[in-house]
Parts: sequence; structure tokens; C-alpha cells
Amino acid sequence: MNHPLYMARALELARRGLYSTHPNPRVGCVVVAGDTVVGEGWHVRAGEPHAEVHALRQAGERARGATAYVTLEPCSHHGRTPPCAEALVAAGVGRVVAAMQDPNPQVSGRGLARLRQAGIEVEVGVLEAEARELNAGFVKRMERGLPLVRVKLAMSLDGRTAMASGESQWITGAPARAAVQRLRARSSVVLTGADTVLADGARLTVRGEELGLAPEQAALALQRPPLRVLVDGGLRVPLDAPFFQAGPALVASCAAEREAAYRTAGHELLALPGEAGRVDLPALLAELAARGANEVLVEAGPRLAGAFARLGLVDEYRIFVAPKFLGSTARPLLELPLERMAEARALKIRDIRAVGEDWQIVAVPA
Amino acid sequence: MNHPLYMARALELARRGLYSTHPNPRVGCVVVAGDTVVGEGWHVRAGEPHAEVHALRQAGERARGATAYVTLEPCSHHGRTPPCAEALVAAGVGRVVAAMQDPNPQVSGRGLARLRQAGIEVEVGVLEAEARELNAGFVKRMERGLPLVRVKLAMSLDGRTAMASGESQWITGAPARAAVQRLRARSSVVLTGADTVLADGARLTVRGEELGLAPEQAALALQRPPLRVLVDGGLRVPLDAPFFQAGPALVASCAAEREAAYRTAGHELLALPGEAGRVDLPALLAELAARGANEVLVEAGPRLAGAFARLGLVDEYRIFVAPKFLGSTARPLLELPLERMAEARALKIRDIRAVGEDWQIVAVPA
Repeated sequence: MNHPLYMARALELARRGLYSTHPNPRVGCVVVAGDTVVGEGWHVRAGEPHAEVHALRQAGERARGATAYVTLEPCSHHGRTPPCAEALVAAGVGRVVAAMQDPNPQVSGRGLARLRQAGIEVEVGVLEAEARELNAGFVKRMERGLPLVRVKLAMSLDGRTAMASGESQWITGAPARAAVQRLRARSSVVLTGADTVLADGARLTVRGEELGLAPEQAALALQRPPLRVLVDGGLRVPLDAPFFQAGPALVASCAAEREAAYRTAGHELLALPGEAGRVDLPALLAELAARGANEVLVEAGPRLAGAFARLGLVDEYRIFVAPKFLGSTARPLLELPLERMAEARALKIRDIRAVGEDWQIVAVPA
Repeated sequence: MNHPLYMARALELARRGLYSTHPNPRVGCVVVAGDTVVGEGWHVRAGEPHAEVHALRQAGERARGATAYVTLEPCSHHGRTPPCAEALVAAGVGRVVAAMQDPNPQVSGRGLARLRQAGIEVEVGVLEAEARELNAGFVKRMERGLPLVRVKLAMSLDGRTAMASGESQWITGAPARAAVQRLRARSSVVLTGADTVLADGARLTVRGEELGLAPEQAALALQRPPLRVLVDGGLRVPLDAPFFQAGPALVASCAAEREAAYRTAGHELLALPGEAGRVDLPALLAELAARGANEVLVEAGPRLAGAFARLGLVDEYRIFVAPKFLGSTARPLLELPLERMAEARALKIRDIRAVGEDWQIVAVPA
């Protein structure tokens, strides 16, 4: 077994934390003595031990002289847990292979430097692309102070979302809805707009039984539900709406009117006035990143989703395509009025796959 | 080698006639003596020998007692060539395996009966689904007196075809355009509307160098170009348009005005008045089938393509999706005004695959 395979295993372990580590990154670790795996670990949730600590505990004395594969550079700073670099030194490992350097400015190379200083052989960059992909939101937040923004859309094959009358219903099937539930569960924030909440009575919650995950993973996901954020510039959504009844939420509006009422009801109101009476979306994203949001899932109607698109704030579109035509008078996917072909937004399709009877397209701005 | 593999080989041979056999079906034949292939043949073009004749010629004396695999029941009638059933009997084959019965009412079982009568062992139904699929147009024409209708559409990821201004251009890349050229080349008829011909100067021809085929197959395709049909109810397209300059065409209109002018210019005018001043599309399809059209490719704008969809005349959509957003004011895929969700046209997506940077979706009415 050569080392990319050990790293692949470490990534597999890291993925177990997909739904629960935020605001921390997902990290896995494998300790190998000779050609025997003697310890495995993954980070479960913030505030608890890091992947390396679990793997070293399992390895015990066999860690001495062994190689540790970690999907992210071991931390060097004292956070809620002691630094992993020190733990690796103390365990006496002979070599550390990291998939990538930690983009966290508090670490960024210092963990590796500490290991080298202690005489440990260090290698970086094995399966780096996969490791960065797994934590793309964390990486973006660390590098740019913004979360990864993923826009979920559901449309018919002719690019429509609802009838002109507003008549709307789930146009995709149960497997696609489960995929959306998993997208919510992995996100730090699920963000929507007043139109969606008012028209559909949307709650944007994670429902364990709809996730289609193994029971332990579903339980983990439910322990770390995403923050629900409502963009409601004019404070149109009443506090007795199902959205507010479903739990505490953050409301981004243009003015801090009636703040006390929201607070009393268990919610937070944030005034972020932008241009033309709209909420300042870039400022909102920066604020969410400051609060530790790695991945933001936008589940909104054509107006708000279109605004994110127009402002160039989208990192990834997840388009669920139902195999039907809703016709030419039905509502568009995005409110994105363009006049000339040259203004067309170029995308790159990264993946298309069947999800039940529907299809999921993953597209990123080109 | 078991017999589905011989039949798969016969289908592979049949596919070589994809661009040239119409109005005939594509047929392949493999003659196997013991476990040795002693003859292979495929039907090249109408009026020339059938697949069985080529394969038997190649096998010569070794056909005696051998097994013949044919993708379609051997013909029993005297057409432009003598019946293949007789040829198989004369060659002394011991067994015939056919993928499917011939849907042609002049044959439909009589070829197989003739073989059995001569003491030949007969089996039918090996890889039948694949064989029917290969000649779906021919089968539909024989069974229902109508051609298979395939609608080609090219759209952006948000379901748009051109800007509101009418500004339009190839939104897909060269590989998708080559795929469209091959769709044209395999069709008996390429059908378009006045809007498309007037707006884009479309000629709807097959261009050998753009097919992306091996030289011999491209040459075959060019020998059997599809009939170009223009639906022009109001005779709006002038005879000096590039479409008419590119070769003889059939024009379907509502009245037979100026028929002589079309005839003089080398074209045919067909009056098929329908409701509300529109051309009667079902009657046009029946007429095309009567003339031997197996597959009709509709390459039209949202109005005419939408009319085919509304009337339930479409067997297959080929949707080329360009990875870009054209925005919400751009033109729709199909003019198909529906008011209620319940009217939505259900489809089944049969295939999605990458074609260069674009994607091709094959969808059929559910």
C-alpha cells in the first residue's frame, strides 16, 4: 500500500465529519507502522479532540517511529484543544505526510515547522486537490474572509421553477429532496429570502429522517444544525411564520426596527442596509464568515438567487433538474436580466448525475 | 463466444449503415461456422444487396450448415433485390438467429416461416431491444405510418436559446455542432420553420467536414443527404434565401400559391392547411412517412418546436446544454404556454453525456 492510498483512507475518515465539524475543517488521520495501520481518527466536532489525537491514542506505543497521514497540517496553536503538532512530537512519530498546509493564518506552516524542528520528516501535498475540495468553505474563509456560497436551484428541463400563477410544489422527487437535506446538513448556514418563506411556508430545517444517512451520522448532523438566515430587507415575514417557529434564526434587514421583538422571540436582527433598499449581501457574507460560517447554502427564489448571481457571489450552483417541461410562461430560474450575448455568465459543468428520476448538475462560474 | 456476442457484432455492422440505408432499415449479418466467423455483411444503401447477401458471399461454401445472425428478420418479398430468406435457404445454412421480426407488413414473420419451411432452425429475439432502437424510425413508420420525430434544441443552463433582442449565435461549441451534423446525416428529413430560416439564414445541410466521421462513412452520408423540409405557412421565405440556394427542398404551406415558381426553382410545394392558418403538422408527418421518411429531425425555433411538443408529436428531445446563463429576459426553449402544474409535460431522461464543454440530454415523453 503506497502513501496515496493511506491518504485516501485519511480523507475517507475526514468525510465522516462532513455534517458536524463546522466551524472547524473536516480532518482525518491514519498512523502507519511499517505497512500496518495502527491508528485511525477523525475530527468529530469543534471543541473535541482533533483527528491526530484519536489516531495516536489508538496507536499507543506503536506510534513511535511510525508515519502519520493527515489531511490537513497539524495545528500548532493552543485553541480549545492542545496543539496536534506537539502531540505528534510527544508520540515520537518518525514522519508526517500532510495533504495540505493549513490555510488558517494562525497555523499556515507553523505546525509543519514545529515537526521539522523536532527532527520529524515532513511531506506536504499528497492528494492536495481532494483535501482542499473537502474543506473548500473553510479554505475560502481562511484565505478571503468569506464563506463558500452554494446556490441550490430546482428546475424543469426547460429551466423553470414554478407556474406564472405562483403555483409551485416540489418538482423533484424524494431522492433529490434527500440530497438537498444533506446539502443543508453539511452547511454552516442555510440562507433564504422573504419571498420563499412567505410563498412556501419554508422552514429550511434539517430533518433527520429525510437525510438518508446512517443513524449515527444523522444524529451527528442534527447536533450541529446550520444557522438559518433570512434576508428580509423590509421585515415582511411575521414572527409567527413557520420559519420563525422552527427555531432561532438570524434576520438580515435594512433597518433595525422592532429589534426587541425579534430578540424576545429568540431571533437576532442584523441591519445591513445596501443600495436601493436592499440588504448588503457582500457585507452579510463577511459577517457570516466572521461568525465561523464555512459553507452557505442559498435556497431562495429567482430574485434573491439572481441577486447573488448578478453580484458574482456564487461559488457553486447545484441544479436539480426534474424531467418535465413547465412551459414558456412559467417562472424563470434566476432573475438575471441580461441584454447582450456578451453578458452571458459562463459556467463550467463539473458533474452531472442521476438522483432518482431527477438529475443534479454541479456548475461553477468559469 | 455465445450468440449474444455474435448478434452484438451484427448490430455493430448494421450501425455502419446509420447514415446511408434510409428509407431502408440498418441491418447487419454474421455467419458463424462452428465457432468461426466465416462471413460478415451490412446493408449499405437502398437498391443494393442486403446484409445477408454480403455475408453469404463472403462465407461461400462455409455457409453450409452454419448459423446466420441477422439484426432483422430476412425479407421474403421481391423488392429491388431478391428475398434474403431464399438466399439463406439456397446457401444451406442450418440455423438463423434474428434479433427481431420485420415490422414491415410485407414481411412480418413470412421470412422466418419460409426458413422454417425449408427445415432451418429459427430463433428470434436476441438483443431485440437494441435492434429495435437502432431502427426505431423504420419500426414506427411500419407500425404506425409515421416517422420518428426527434427535436433538437440548444439552450443555456437556464433554459434559454437567444437574447430577447433576437441576438443569437451558436451557444454551444464545435463538438456539439458536429453531433448535430451527425443527427442530420442519420435522418431522412431535416425539418425547420420560416422563423429559423429568416433569422439565422439557416441552410440545414450536412457538411462532410463537420461530421467528425471516418472519410468512408462521411462519403456515404453525403451520398444520402436528408430531405430538407421547410414549414412556411405564409410563404414568407424568399426563393433567393440561402436555404433554397443550398439545394432542392420541400415546402409545406397553407395554400398552393406560386407553386410554379417553387417548381421552377427546383423545389416542391405542398399545401397542407391546418387550423388557425397553420400548417397541419400531423398530416405533414404522415406524408413524409408515405415518402419513406424514418427519422425526422426538427431543428426549429421555440414556436415550431413548441407546436410539435403541444401536439404530442415528439418521440425524442436532444437538448444540447451550454454551460452558461443567458438570463431571465432571454428567449425560452419552447413556446409552450401552460397554466397549471398538472399540465406539465412529463419526460424521462434517457441519457446525459458531455459533448466537449457542452452536455447532451436525451429525453423522451414519459
